[in-house]
Amino acid sequence: MNRLPIEERLLRNVRILSQSSPQEMRMVPRGDGAFPSVAGLRDIVSLVRAIVFPDFFDCRRNNERIRSCYLGVNIEKLYSLLHTEIRRALRFDNTYEEEEVSEEASLLALQFIDELPEIKRLLFTDVEAMYDNDPAADNYAEIILSYPVVNAMVHYRSAHVLLKLGIPVIPRVITELAHSTTGIDINPGATIGEYFAIDHGTGVVIGETCIIGNHVTLYQGVTLGAKNFSLDSNGHPLNIPRHPIIEDNVTIYSNSTILGRITVGHDSVIGGNIWLTHSVEPWSRIVQQKAFSQKET
Amino acid sequence: MNRLPIEERLLRNVRILSQSSPQEMRMVPRGDGAFPSVAGLRDIVSLVRAIVFPDFFDCRRNNERIRSCYLGVNIEKLYSLLHTEIRRALRFDNTYEEEEVSEEASLLALQFIDELPEIKRLLFTDVEAMYDNDPAADNYAEIILSYPVVNAMVHYRSAHVLLKLGIPVIPRVITELAHSTTGIDINPGATIGEYFAIDHGTGVVIGETCIIGNHVTLYQGVTLGAKNFSLDSNGHPLNIPRHPIIEDNVTIYSNSTILGRITVGHDSVIGGNIWLTHSVEPWSRIVQQKAFSQKET
Amino acid sequence: MNRLPIEERLLRNVRILSQSSPQEMRMVPRGDGAFPSVAGLRDIVSLVRAIVFPDFFDCRRNNERIRSCYLGVNIEKLYSLLHTEIRRALRFDNTYEEEEVSEEASLLALQFIDELPEIKRLLFTDVEAMYDNDPAADNYAEIILSYPVVNAMVHYRSAHVLLKLGIPVIPRVITELAHSTTGIDINPGATIGEYFAIDHGTGVVIGETCIIGNHVTLYQGVTLGAKNFSLDSNGHPLNIPRHPIIEDNVTIYSNSTILGRITVGHDSVIGGNIWLTHSVEPWSRIVQQKAFSQKET
Amino acid sequence: MNRLPIEERLLRNVRILSQSSPQEMRMVPRGDGAFPSVAGLRDIVSLVRAIVFPDFFDCRRNNERIRSCYLGVNIEKLYSLLHTEIRRALRFDNTYEEEEVSEEASLLALQFIDELPEIKRLLFTDVEAMYDNDPAADNYAEIILSYPVVNAMVHYRSAHVLLKLGIPVIPRVITELAHSTTGIDINPGATIGEYFAIDHGTGVVIGETCIIGNHVTLYQGVTLGAKNFSLDSNGHPLNIPRHPIIEDNVTIYSNSTILGRITVGHDSVIGGNIWLTHSVEPWSRIVQQKAFSQKET
Amino acid sequence: MNRLPIEERLLRNVRILSQSSPQEMRMVPRGDGAFPSVAGLRDIVSLVRAIVFPDFFDCRRNNERIRSCYLGVNIEKLYSLLHTEIRRALRFDNTYEEEEVSEEASLLALQFIDELPEIKRLLFTDVEAMYDNDPAADNYAEIILSYPVVNAMVHYRSAHVLLKLGIPVIPRVITELAHSTTGIDINPGATIGEYFAIDHGTGVVIGETCIIGNHVTLYQGVTLGAKNFSLDSNGHPLNIPRHPIIEDNVTIYSNSTILGRITVGHDSVIGGNIWLTHSVEPWSRIVQQKAFSQKET
Amino acid sequence: MNRLPIEERLLRNVRILSQSSPQEMRMVPRGDGAFPSVAGLRDIVSLVRAIVFPDFFDCRRNNERIRSCYLGVNIEKLYSLLHTEIRRALRFDNTYEEEEVSEEASLLALQFIDELPEIKRLLFTDVEAMYDNDPAADNYAEIILSYPVVNAMVHYRSAHVLLKLGIPVIPRVITELAHSTTGIDINPGATIGEYFAIDHGTGVVIGETCIIGNHVTLYQGVTLGAKNFSLDSNGHPLNIPRHPIIEDNVTIYSNSTILGRITVGHDSVIGGNIWLTHSVEPWSRIVQQKAFSQKET
Repeated sequence: MNRLPIEERLLRNVRILSQSSPQEMRMVPRGDGAFPSVAGLRDIVSLVRAIVFPDFFDCRRNNERIRSCYLGVNIEKLYSLLHTEIRRALRFDNTYEEEEVSEEASLLALQFIDELPEIKRLLFTDVEAMYDNDPAADNYAEIILSYPVVNAMVHYRSAHVLLKLGIPVIPRVITELAHSTTGIDINPGATIGEYFAIDHGTGVVIGETCIIGNHVTLYQGVTLGAKNFSLDSNGHPLNIPRHPIIEDNVTIYSNSTILGRITVGHDSVIGGNIWLTHSVEPWSRIVQQKAFSQKET
Repeated sequence: MNRLPIEERLLRNVRILSQSSPQEMRMVPRGDGAFPSVAGLRDIVSLVRAIVFPDFFDCRRNNERIRSCYLGVNIEKLYSLLHTEIRRALRFDNTYEEEEVSEEASLLALQFIDELPEIKRLLFTDVEAMYDNDPAADNYAEIILSYPVVNAMVHYRSAHVLLKLGIPVIPRVITELAHSTTGIDINPGATIGEYFAIDHGTGVVIGETCIIGNHVTLYQGVTLGAKNFSLDSNGHPLNIPRHPIIEDNVTIYSNSTILGRITVGHDSVIGGNIWLTHSVEPWSRIVQQKAFSQKET
Repeated sequence: MNRLPIEERLLRNVRILSQSSPQEMRMVPRGDGAFPSVAGLRDIVSLVRAIVFPDFFDCRRNNERIRSCYLGVNIEKLYSLLHTEIRRALRFDNTYEEEEVSEEASLLALQFIDELPEIKRLLFTDVEAMYDNDPAADNYAEIILSYPVVNAMVHYRSAHVLLKLGIPVIPRVITELAHSTTGIDINPGATIGEYFAIDHGTGVVIGETCIIGNHVTLYQGVTLGAKNFSLDSNGHPLNIPRHPIIEDNVTIYSNSTILGRITVGHDSVIGGNIWLTHSVEPWSRIVQQKAFSQKET
Repeated sequence: MNRLPIEERLLRNVRILSQSSPQEMRMVPRGDGAFPSVAGLRDIVSLVRAIVFPDFFDCRRNNERIRSCYLGVNIEKLYSLLHTEIRRALRFDNTYEEEEVSEEASLLALQFIDELPEIKRLLFTDVEAMYDNDPAADNYAEIILSYPVVNAMVHYRSAHVLLKLGIPVIPRVITELAHSTTGIDINPGATIGEYFAIDHGTGVVIGETCIIGNHVTLYQGVTLGAKNFSLDSNGHPLNIPRHPIIEDNVTIYSNSTILGRITVGHDSVIGGNIWLTHSVEPWSRIVQQKAFSQKET
Repeated sequence: MNRLPIEERLLRNVRILSQSSPQEMRMVPRGDGAFPSVAGLRDIVSLVRAIVFPDFFDCRRNNERIRSCYLGVNIEKLYSLLHTEIRRALRFDNTYEEEEVSEEASLLALQFIDELPEIKRLLFTDVEAMYDNDPAADNYAEIILSYPVVNAMVHYRSAHVLLKLGIPVIPRVITELAHSTTGIDINPGATIGEYFAIDHGTGVVIGETCIIGNHVTLYQGVTLGAKNFSLDSNGHPLNIPRHPIIEDNVTIYSNSTILGRITVGHDSVIGGNIWLTHSVEPWSRIVQQKAFSQKET
Repeated sequence: MNRLPIEERLLRNVRILSQSSPQEMRMVPRGDGAFPSVAGLRDIVSLVRAIVFPDFFDCRRNNERIRSCYLGVNIEKLYSLLHTEIRRALRFDNTYEEEEVSEEASLLALQFIDELPEIKRLLFTDVEAMYDNDPAADNYAEIILSYPVVNAMVHYRSAHVLLKLGIPVIPRVITELAHSTTGIDINPGATIGEYFAIDHGTGVVIGETCIIGNHVTLYQGVTLGAKNFSLDSNGHPLNIPRHPIIEDNVTIYSNSTILGRITVGHDSVIGGNIWLTHSVEPWSRIVQQKAFSQKET
């Protein structure tokens, strides 16, 4: 057995771990800029939430001008944090010359902030939809303060805008933050309309190329996934439309799985535990066969 | 493209975001009291856990009188935190006159503290049940320190008592805290007996009007949900009994879904992946049909 | 109703809660050493992650010698934290005399650190496997920074080594930390080969006696569980091999459940939503029957 | 020697220390409101400093409207902190009925905030005076950021206003905070004009009933103290005018001591190490006798 | 000029700074135990203050039993912190065998805690003395909360007991903590009776072998120092009685300097700015000569 | 009296305080870069201390290579913090074009780091000098851990190097940090040789143009100041040599004041409480006249 003194054993491992394998070297882009900071992105989303729902995650203020002071400070901080993290993401991406990165990051941060009013409008429709779907909801406050879907949608709607602006890495890290605390995994590339609700939510997966209409409701464990994927010449899977299109006014109950580039027509209802891999007409009502009930005594 | 100076663009959005839409105004009750603080509620549950399992989340003390000093301090802090958050919740609810709120909050905090011995008794039965069901459990310590069911039940059993006392908003926020860290979503309105176990737990949903007996065990992904719901005249769903009754000594295996106001008779076993929407007799044993096994070569 | 002064009511509950029930006394080993600290274990895993992926969770450094300074400091801190927590776990276990505990803890900490290079090698294969399976992955950085599988595997691969070294309590607490943030529940006793991938991940359960080969991929909601278990003479379930063996190059799609000590032969594909309780040959392709599609208008 | 078990010895001292001596009981007013919090008062002074010198202790902002957002938020926080601490001070004082305390505290907090513009004006004159007196000062920034006199005057000028409003306890605690970090001990009761400078400052003492004009400069170690004091019938010293009056344009060099209710006439200079207990005319120039220079070889 | 790449220049300095000079090696005892932690000692004094003045630095509690719970918790924490820091100090001192150090540290910690009632008694006499001497003091609360003498005496009286118990290093570090925040430098070796007051305090120095009676009052800038000292054969100064003895009921006004092993007889008054190097009789009244008053016009 | 609603009164003051007076506008350089951060400078000095005395403010390490890992990490962090703060100071100064600032800051940070070995050498001579002068010092550890002179000299010696490099603002802020915690006010412009000691220290002032030789010892309250100063044409005092030159091997006892550009010859002793404004020969021995001793009975 190994009987080196403690420090020597530690140092031997320092030496070994200092050497990068070819696999590691391929993965880690050489350069010395820091990667976007997960803590910084967490703060960004918290600021978005405080801006959108100012009364809930801060003190309530009757006076509109005082409230707009808080808004001003939060938006200025948001701009500054966004500038820092977007600059890191752009440097990592190597698309821009060093001198352009800071100005480009500023531009993108401002474009994101210009979208905040629309993000806010959409999030209030999501809260409304949730309230209309949950008999257990006594008031809007407990939805905004605690329902996982609201938390997930603040992350997703922010990340989706950042993705549309062409910012690398950050959008996915943001939606994974929501995935971690809610169990709801929405790819930032998905397109989702207004009045979107998810009840309970744990285990929901919404794939990158999904297109979801208005007034759609999902329950826990619903997967909107890909059926299969093609590989490019390097063996890496091709990123092409491969997830479902869900039209307006569709409800999908718990643990159902909808796979592939199929269309669920508007005003349809998909029951629980359904496995669906082909398109269905508008006004469809898909329910499960009596799949069991064998009883033994 | 937008070429305003940075500050002007920020301020333009401050102006826009300061104006509340009619939808927002309907959701946010005017008034200036703060909402209950999520961080404060988190501290409340941590104190309950430290009071119930004093040896595990603090130093272990041989001396009973020193241990009761720690208990005394923790209970006094718990009272003070409860008083603050319950007062906020009551003000938000507008049921009480301003001058009554503080006294009422004090009364409710004390009534909760009077229930701590019973909460503690029940939680130890849950630990015992978990130990008896998990071959992988080597000792009680790893269950108490880390099993998600224990964490979920500390939250649920506290929230359930608070709900019974008529306190608004807080109970649901507390169970959502557990939902976020465990993936187990138990509505505080559910009624759950002693010796309750959930293995793994991710994706479990237990609805608001469930009634669960003693010695019941669930596995991951089990839903005890509503089949459908009626709307009131405003289009908001009616909150009536709509979730299952699970009698004593029932085990429900992973990913099964039990929906509607049905009864699963005592001493029954529901297999995995079952979809059940009608009542079953005591001593039933529901297993899945041979639902597939189509093999392609 | 209870009208004692506030302090008296608090103190009455202090008195009641100070008395341990027989059930509590059976669960809590008397002694005065602290239990392993959950916060300490969290720090240990963070250090392992910083050591394995030094460029991602810290600044990036071009200079190898400066990077190895960071490695040296992190490994020295890791040794110190491991020594503290392992000593607590060993004292709790009562296997060692007081005077031996510290030396034994030091030895075990060093043995863990000797395994870091292999842990690092395996984790990079897991990242590679994830990259090769996910069309939505644009680069390795977003996988390492945010994919739940990477987070889960840092925890699992560390915990598995600690378990192999015979350290009690700590391994399970560590994998439950990952379970809480990722929804992926891997028992530290499971054996998992290289190039292991889990997409989305929420709801995945991998049991204690699973044996998983190389190049295996799972999707969300997959259970590799036990079908049933035997009890010992005390009524506590026996811990014997009871979970599946998954051979090399197997893919299992979302929400499938594989139960019991069965073998899934190499190069097989198990479709989504499958319930499998018997072994399948190599190169099998298990897909679901057309289990529904009843449409009502 | 004492060989009780550890816990017993600790508990024995708990018992002894729980009993209040008559001396302690006389000093500690019975009641259950908290005393003003030293940390809260520290935050209050930090907010005053951030409001008065917004560019120095926060980011610099070119845009006036964004700057006034920061001002708005800081003033609102200041109001809230003042309200809390003043309420505590008033309850402690027992002058007000319980129901009046909160409203009175609000009124006093607002009256303090109304004085902020004047406090700001005076503090800028102090900075100017310091700049005009110190050849080592290269710029205003290092004065504002680091000179002890500025720190001391932010505390004193705030505390003096609070004292004038009749608020107990708080003013003295605030000036002692400055005393602790600067070595400058200015009693909040002292009256000090504009353009006041203290160089180095350590050891300066300015008594409660001092009256200091405009454009006065002190150096380190200067005492403006009482010569003696009379006792009241309880033996407690009487609080009557007993400290010097220093008229406009006076300079007092290091370590001089001016005692008693005397007047130093305007435009005088008091040299270093002077002991002065009688009034001096305007335009006086007091310097030390050749008090030594005995040289031994 | 030096044009090495950044990292190389950093590393060159790492190499140089890694080499200890002979001077450094002589000063730093080789060994691997940590030195006592300044932060730990700060916490120890904070606990002593919270134990002695429980109503002031924590919430006020009417109920004696709840207050004694707080006392119990604070004393238990104090024991634990003392044990840690005393063990470090003893290991550093090398007087004890490794195996004895922990037990000896426990013994010493308990002996300190046995002195807490006497420390508390003395500190209340100091508060009383301060109240009786300061016309500006409106109440005991502002003395206990903010007067530097109280802060200095909590440190000194604790450090003095620790010194008497023979504990190395720690006592001096503790009194320097007070020196830093109050400007009052009391050597832990000094002996000080009850009812001790210091007004203002900045610049007070009380030497190691001072002996101070009861009811003594000092003002700012008073030095009780050594006149000269003898060297031992290594050239290090000899630690023998060399500071003044101040008998009961003595008052010494600001900035006076009393040097050497002289005695100031009881009931004496020493005026301000006095330089005293010989003993004075009881009931003496030393005042300054008319040392100046040269006036130029 | 003012009876506006609370928010209106707050906002009225926001408006008033938003307007900068001409005096304020003259003092605050327009621009939007942040000023150097006091917290950042505090961290810089803490890193210098940890680098110079690695065993005292961190764990002690027997193994030299592990110790140099800690050194490497600390120096790399120091470089990064210095770069940030120096860049801020240079932008504030407007000497450099925007694009040059970052490179210049890097250069200056490296030049400072190149001086660390000499800073370390000097600081160990200061510790030695202190040990040789204080009979109360039992060991080097308590000097390094707690004596104010060591703390003051770490700040001064760092600040002096930064000043020599031409960096604005930062040096003075750093020495004021030491002034605040030690009561020792050393201007960063002063020149101080090796083996410098200050006992007790409170109230010591060392002016900007002082030149102090080797083996000089000061006691508390010593001022090395300017006698008077000339004004430039703007009325701002001229910064020319105006403080004393203290040659090698001089000791100056407590509370003495040495003023003006005079020279205290080598190997002199200046007694306590001396007021000295003319040069003295080498080997002088200045003691006080018998300045008093008027005794009243």
